[in-house]
Amino acid sequence: MMLLGTQRINSEGRLEIGGVDTTRLAAEYGTPLYVMDEAALREKARAYLVAFSARWPKVKVSFAGKAFLCTGICKVIEQEGLSLDVASGGELYTALQAGFPVEQITLHGNNKSVEELRMALEAGVGHIVVDNFLELDLLTDLLSEMRGGLSRPQPILVRVAPGIDPHTHRRISTGQADTKFGFDVASGAVLMAVRRALEIPGIEFRGLHCHVGSQLLDTDCHEASVGIMADLVIQVKQQLGVECPELNVGGGLGIRYLASQQPPSLEAFADVVTRVLRDRLESAGVALPTLLQEPGRSLVGEAGTTLYTIGSIKQIPGTRTYVAVDGGLSDNPRPALYEAKYSVISANKAAQPHDQVVTVSGKHCETDLLFPDTPLADPQPGDILAVQSTGAYNFAMASNYNRFRRPAVVLVSEGQADLLVRRENYEDLVARDLMPARLARQTM
Amino acid sequence: MMLLGTQRINSEGRLEIGGVDTTRLAAEYGTPLYVMDEAALREKARAYLVAFSARWPKVKVSFAGKAFLCTGICKVIEQEGLSLDVASGGELYTALQAGFPVEQITLHGNNKSVEELRMALEAGVGHIVVDNFLELDLLTDLLSEMRGGLSRPQPILVRVAPGIDPHTHRRISTGQADTKFGFDVASGAVLMAVRRALEIPGIEFRGLHCHVGSQLLDTDCHEASVGIMADLVIQVKQQLGVECPELNVGGGLGIRYLASQQPPSLEAFADVVTRVLRDRLESAGVALPTLLQEPGRSLVGEAGTTLYTIGSIKQIPGTRTYVAVDGGLSDNPRPALYEAKYSVISANKAAQPHDQVVTVSGKHCETDLLFPDTPLADPQPGDILAVQSTGAYNFAMASNYNRFRRPAVVLVSEGQADLLVRRENYEDLVARDLMPARLARQTM
Repeated sequence: MMLLGTQRINSEGRLEIGGVDTTRLAAEYGTPLYVMDEAALREKARAYLVAFSARWPKVKVSFAGKAFLCTGICKVIEQEGLSLDVASGGELYTALQAGFPVEQITLHGNNKSVEELRMALEAGVGHIVVDNFLELDLLTDLLSEMRGGLSRPQPILVRVAPGIDPHTHRRISTGQADTKFGFDVASGAVLMAVRRALEIPGIEFRGLHCHVGSQLLDTDCHEASVGIMADLVIQVKQQLGVECPELNVGGGLGIRYLASQQPPSLEAFADVVTRVLRDRLESAGVALPTLLQEPGRSLVGEAGTTLYTIGSIKQIPGTRTYVAVDGGLSDNPRPALYEAKYSVISANKAAQPHDQVVTVSGKHCETDLLFPDTPLADPQPGDILAVQSTGAYNFAMASNYNRFRRPAVVLVSEGQADLLVRRENYEDLVARDLMPARLARQTM
Repeated sequence: MMLLGTQRINSEGRLEIGGVDTTRLAAEYGTPLYVMDEAALREKARAYLVAFSARWPKVKVSFAGKAFLCTGICKVIEQEGLSLDVASGGELYTALQAGFPVEQITLHGNNKSVEELRMALEAGVGHIVVDNFLELDLLTDLLSEMRGGLSRPQPILVRVAPGIDPHTHRRISTGQADTKFGFDVASGAVLMAVRRALEIPGIEFRGLHCHVGSQLLDTDCHEASVGIMADLVIQVKQQLGVECPELNVGGGLGIRYLASQQPPSLEAFADVVTRVLRDRLESAGVALPTLLQEPGRSLVGEAGTTLYTIGSIKQIPGTRTYVAVDGGLSDNPRPALYEAKYSVISANKAAQPHDQVVTVSGKHCETDLLFPDTPLADPQPGDILAVQSTGAYNFAMASNYNRFRRPAVVLVSEGQADLLVRRENYEDLVARDLMPARLARQTM
C-alpha cells in the first residue's frame, strides 16, 4: 500500500491523514470530501525552494493555481514564500481576496480578455505572461488608455512554444510545435514578440516563459526545453542586445497516482534543469537569470485525498463487481477526461488485505466509471474509500453535473481539521436560476 | 449550412435564433452564452407526444432533466404536459422549487442515498425507479420508519439491464450486460427484484424500466431492448401473476450535431418501439401498459446554441490555425469527454462562405481543443461563433475550471430574450471559501 504525506494507518486499523481519522472526517463533514494534507503541501513547497535554491543563485517558485485554488490555499502558499500563477480573472480575483501579495502574482492564458488584462494591470500583478501578438496589441491600447494610472511599467514574460512533444496525455501536452500556446521558435516569432514588447511604452520585458506539459514522469522533455530556452535567452542577448533577467521554465513534474509511478525526485529534476541552463548560458557568457518554476500538480496533487462512502454493490458473475460511491464524474472528471488511474484505500479497513478486485463507479446517470480493477478490503455499503492524489484538478474541475452538490474541502494538520471550502447546499444549486415573467404567467 | 429550430440568417447576414439576432444577444448578455430556442424545445416536446400518442393507447413522455435542468426549463416542460425525470436530490430540489407537479416526477439513480430516497418519499414523487437490492432494503427501512407518514403507497418501477450493447460512445452506454445500472436479465435478478418489491409494505409495483444508451443514431438497439422488455412484462405476468401497468423504455434517440448525422424521425422511432411491443404483448395476451419515454438530449439538445467571441488567432504555417474563443472545457466538456463533434456558424458572418478550416480552441490552461477542422467565415478577433446543438450536457456539465465564471442561459422566442440563469460573478467563485482562523493568524 502506498501511503503519501502524513497518511498512516492508526491503531484502529483506519486511515489517518494529518493525525485525523478519515472515518471521523467522513462522519463530521460528509462524503464526498476533499481532504488536504497541510503538512504534505507545506513540505513539498519547501522542498521545491530548497532543491532549486541549492543549485541556482536566484530562484522563484510559483504555484500554478489552476491545479487547486481557494483563498485558504493562497494563504498557505503565501506563508511558504511561494509566488502564484493565475490563469483567469477568476483566479486573480481569488488571490486578491485572499490578500495574496499582488507583486508575486503572474497572469497566464492563451486568450486573455481585455477585462482580465485591465484587472491585472490595475491590480499591479508581478508578471503578465504574454502569449500572442493580439495580446501585445491589447496591452498597447490598455497601457495607452491608462497612461499615468500605473505607478511602474508592467513586467512581462514572453511565452515560447519550444516545440517539444512531451510524453504525456495529448490533452495536457502544451509545449509541442502544434499548440495554441505561445510564440513559435522555428518561425522567429519569439524574437519578433520580444522586439515588439521592447517598443511598447509601459511594458518592462523581463524574460521568457515555457511550459511543456503536465504529469511528466521523466526529465527528458524538461532537459530539451530548457536547452531551447537557454538558446533563446542567448539569442535575445546577441540579436537584440537585451538581457533576460528572468527565465520561467514552467512546471509539469509528475506525481504518484499509482505506487508503480516513480517521478524524478526534486533534486534530480533540479539537477537536470540547472545543469543544462548553466552549461549553455555560461559558455555563451550570458548572466544567469532568476529561475522561475511553476509547479501545480506536483505541489498539491499528492496532498489531496477524496473520501467517498460505498453505496450499492452489483456483482455480475463472471464479469465484474461494481462498487458504487456517492460521487463521480462531477467531483473527479479525470478518469473520464484523461483515463487517469488512481490508488484507493479502504479507509475503515486500511489494515485489512486489499484483495477483492472491483470496479469503483460513480453515481452519475451515465457509465461514470471511476476506478476499474481496484483492489479493496471486503467492500460493503457504508465503507469509506480514500482515493489518493486527488489534490490537483479535482476540486478545480468539479461540476454540478446531475445537480450534485460539490464537496467540501477540509484542511487537516496535527489532529486538527478546518473547512477551506464549505459543501454546496441545495439552495446554491438554484441561486442563479431566474423565472421569466412570461413563463410564470403562462397557463397550461 | 445546417440550421436548426428557429435558426435563420437575417437580412444583415447574421444568425438569428427565436427572432433575436445572436450578435445582439452576445452584446447584451456577454459570451460565452447558452441560448435556448423556446419554440424548438416546445415543438420537440409536442412532437414526442404526438408521435407516440398516435401509435399507443396511453403514453407519457418524461424529460430526462440531467440533460439540462433549471427552474425555467421545468416550467416549459410542465406547460407542454411532459413529466420529469430527476437523477439526484439536487435535480429533485430544482423541480420542486419550480413547482413542478410532484406526482409527475420520477427519481432515478444507480446509487441513491438514504437522504435522496427520503426526500422523494416525503415529497411524494410519482415514481422511484429502483436500481438494485440495496435500494429495496433502504426503501423497506424508510417506509417502515415513515409508516403512516405517507398518504399512499410509493409507486416504483424496476430498472432492467437488458444486455444490449448500444452503438455509441462507451461512456454513455448503459444497457449492456456489463453495467452498473439495474437488474440483470440473464441471472433472473429482474424477477427476483419484482418479487421482493411486491412483498414490501408501502410499495406499489408499477412496472419495468430500461435505458440502453444515449445519442443512438439508429433504432436497432431500441428494437432489441423493447423486445426484451416486452418478454419480461410477459414473464412477470406469467410467473408472478402480476400486470405491469407501466413500461418505461428509456430515452436515447440521437440528435444532429453535424449535418451528416441523420437520427431516425420520431415517427420512425415510435413505429419501431410500438410495433415490437404490440406484437409481443398482444400475441401473449398481455394488456398494453402505459408506455413511458424519457428523452433528454433529443428534447433539448438541438434547441441549445452556445455563443463565443473569438480572441487570439495563431497561425502555424503548414500545420493549422488555432482560433481561440472565450470559453472552453468548462462550458462544454463533451469534446474532451466523448470526442464529441459540433457544427459552428460564424454568427456575424453567417451569410458569407465558411471556407477557412481552423481549429477552435478554448482559453483554458491546457490543450482545450474544442472543434478541430471547423470551417468558418474569415475568422477575426471579435467575431461571434455559434456552436449548435449544445442544449444537452453543456450547461449541465459546466465547471468553474480555471475559476471561469459559468455562462448565463437565455431563453429566446418571438424576438424576446429572457435570462433563465444569470452568469456567475467573481463573488460567486469565492462564496464557499473559508479562512481557518489558524491560517489567518499565522505569520510568515
